[in-house]
Amino acid sequence: MAHVVGDASKAADVARFVEAAQSLAPLAVAVHNAGSNRPAPFLKISEEHFESHWREHVLGGFQVAQASLPALVARGGGSLFFTGASGSLRGKANFAPFASAKAGVRNLAQSIAREFGPQNIHVGHVVVDGGIMGERLLTFRPQLAAERGPDGMLDIDAIADTYWFMHHQHRSAWTLELDVRPWAENF
Amino acid sequence: MAHVVGDASKAADVARFVEAAQSLAPLAVAVHNAGSNRPAPFLKISEEHFESHWREHVLGGFQVAQASLPALVARGGGSLFFTGASGSLRGKANFAPFASAKAGVRNLAQSIAREFGPQNIHVGHVVVDGGIMGERLLTFRPQLAAERGPDGMLDIDAIADTYWFMHHQHRSAWTLELDVRPWAENF
Amino acid sequence: MAHVVGDASKAADVARFVEAAQSLAPLAVAVHNAGSNRPAPFLKISEEHFESHWREHVLGGFQVAQASLPALVARGGGSLFFTGASGSLRGKANFAPFASAKAGVRNLAQSIAREFGPQNIHVGHVVVDGGIMGERLLTFRPQLAAERGPDGMLDIDAIADTYWFMHHQHRSAWTLELDVRPWAENF
Amino acid sequence: MAHVVGDASKAADVARFVEAAQSLAPLAVAVHNAGSNRPAPFLKISEEHFESHWREHVLGGFQVAQASLPALVARGGGSLFFTGASGSLRGKANFAPFASAKAGVRNLAQSIAREFGPQNIHVGHVVVDGGIMGERLLTFRPQLAAERGPDGMLDIDAIADTYWFMHHQHRSAWTLELDVRPWAENF
Repeated sequence: MAHVVGDASKAADVARFVEAAQSLAPLAVAVHNAGSNRPAPFLKISEEHFESHWREHVLGGFQVAQASLPALVARGGGSLFFTGASGSLRGKANFAPFASAKAGVRNLAQSIAREFGPQNIHVGHVVVDGGIMGERLLTFRPQLAAERGPDGMLDIDAIADTYWFMHHQHRSAWTLELDVRPWAENF
Repeated sequence: MAHVVGDASKAADVARFVEAAQSLAPLAVAVHNAGSNRPAPFLKISEEHFESHWREHVLGGFQVAQASLPALVARGGGSLFFTGASGSLRGKANFAPFASAKAGVRNLAQSIAREFGPQNIHVGHVVVDGGIMGERLLTFRPQLAAERGPDGMLDIDAIADTYWFMHHQHRSAWTLELDVRPWAENF
Repeated sequence: MAHVVGDASKAADVARFVEAAQSLAPLAVAVHNAGSNRPAPFLKISEEHFESHWREHVLGGFQVAQASLPALVARGGGSLFFTGASGSLRGKANFAPFASAKAGVRNLAQSIAREFGPQNIHVGHVVVDGGIMGERLLTFRPQLAAERGPDGMLDIDAIADTYWFMHHQHRSAWTLELDVRPWAENF
Repeated sequence: MAHVVGDASKAADVARFVEAAQSLAPLAVAVHNAGSNRPAPFLKISEEHFESHWREHVLGGFQVAQASLPALVARGGGSLFFTGASGSLRGKANFAPFASAKAGVRNLAQSIAREFGPQNIHVGHVVVDGGIMGERLLTFRPQLAAERGPDGMLDIDAIADTYWFMHHQHRSAWTLELDVRPWAENF
């Protein structure tokens, strides 16, 4: 297993990611999985703050798609997945940067799906609705998981299983969008 | 493997389905999977025609939920899935009976999901968008599959795989809704 | 001003409504505006309870459309409007009868809009999201309005203004759907 | 009547717009109304092409909101409207830049609506679905209007009437979103 570090909003870095992957085997799956979210009252949001969300989520998704699609098409098929959130579907107070960006990713994914599906590329968009039981959460909000109770936050492997499943779906029945959410989540 | 024949819109019949299943093992999964769709210009649709779609899709879904939920709750968990269609999401000309009914099923599923998720019941709604490669299609529209090309219509096993996957999702990451669609479908 | 009393889910009654209107002038606008909503835990909902919501909302809307469209088409144009609610868009716990029915009305309206728009009939669907400041509310929940503060519940004339506006929209820019919601509503 | 020319994606220019308006009277309505749309196959879209749509639609909407909200709040109320398109709701093949940007505007509008509604600011989002009968159309596609037939494209005054109506809605029944579409449009 190898990993490459870079900024997914920069074309050159994403090109490196794809090259590194291709050096191991023809690229079969690309996932854009951005997570930053700094909520704030709207008039406290600077242009830089607002733009940074777009760069990470939307421009990052664009770059990953631009760099990976030629490799996937050359291979004759594969998957390109984007991670969304409940903010992909609607904007709440204080969430303008994140919700605006995530909505932009969603329609980007749909546009690409409609163009590249007939080229045998499975484009998917996963709406993750809930807290993720990972390092960031355990570091910054250690009590939250306890409050939510057993399996009250999304298990990372469980999320990964869903992407894995989508990648292996028969092409006569591809999923473009699904949501994943803890069983006891109030929504 | 056993099967029981009946009318899913009738409470007594659905109670029999559940009893028959329970006689084999505690009920783990119930699926409501109705498909009738008789499009017509709106002013040609009789009250009976309109109502019959509601009975099959919405009342049938209601009965399946009413009969299966107590068994699923008694078992401590399980899955209740509903089959939707692109008509679940919007009404097109000539599709008033089907689209109205399928939208009713969708919101029914959402209501039940929000109430029974915290009781460990996974409620799901699968939007099937496209023709299904099955007996009905091969009998009544034999040329269609050929026109659509390879894997151009939904394979029944591929649809079933998706329900199977949903049933086995970790409860920290349950899917409420997903769509399935052939790779080359224009949408 | 005249009014006629009847059950909008019955074809004969709705035919009488349209006749009564036509006796005054060619029918220009028909509005289906049903409001019943009896929330309950899902397993406490009888088949009769569930069906009654469908009859009032969806079958009532169907009957109003069936009876009024021929008159509107004969007149060469007019409006057919349906009243929705936040439940039209999603189902919440305990709201299965209402949300299922209101979703059915919405897709019914869309189907009719797509078929009859090109016949110069303006079909609209108004999502009323919030309490309505009317007799029912003042009788049964007199304190609620006070709690919500000034203009915290929908003024009936304000709702009517919106239907009036929609009816008078230029046909090059017709609205199919809009929401109306009090300014301070949390949503 | 006065007008001021500038780039709505630049904070300084938008500040000038608001100052110019305020020099006449306290600002009552601000509208962000961006229209650029350059469709292209996804792999032909440069980063600059993609970003320019975000700058015009999303960053422009952000700047207009940032500059106008303090004035509207100071006045004690007013309206802030955004113009959307069918691309606000879904992405089609070749429309990634536009659909991604318009979706971003929509969720931006929703976030602001939820925060500023309770401050007496009416935030609205108008989904314009169809060709607009204006200078650009008559210059570049003169035959299109004829093909569409009478009132087959959106009349500019009719669109403006809808914004005007929204601005004058009673605050107990504000519209957050509506669509406008020619009567004979196929959708």
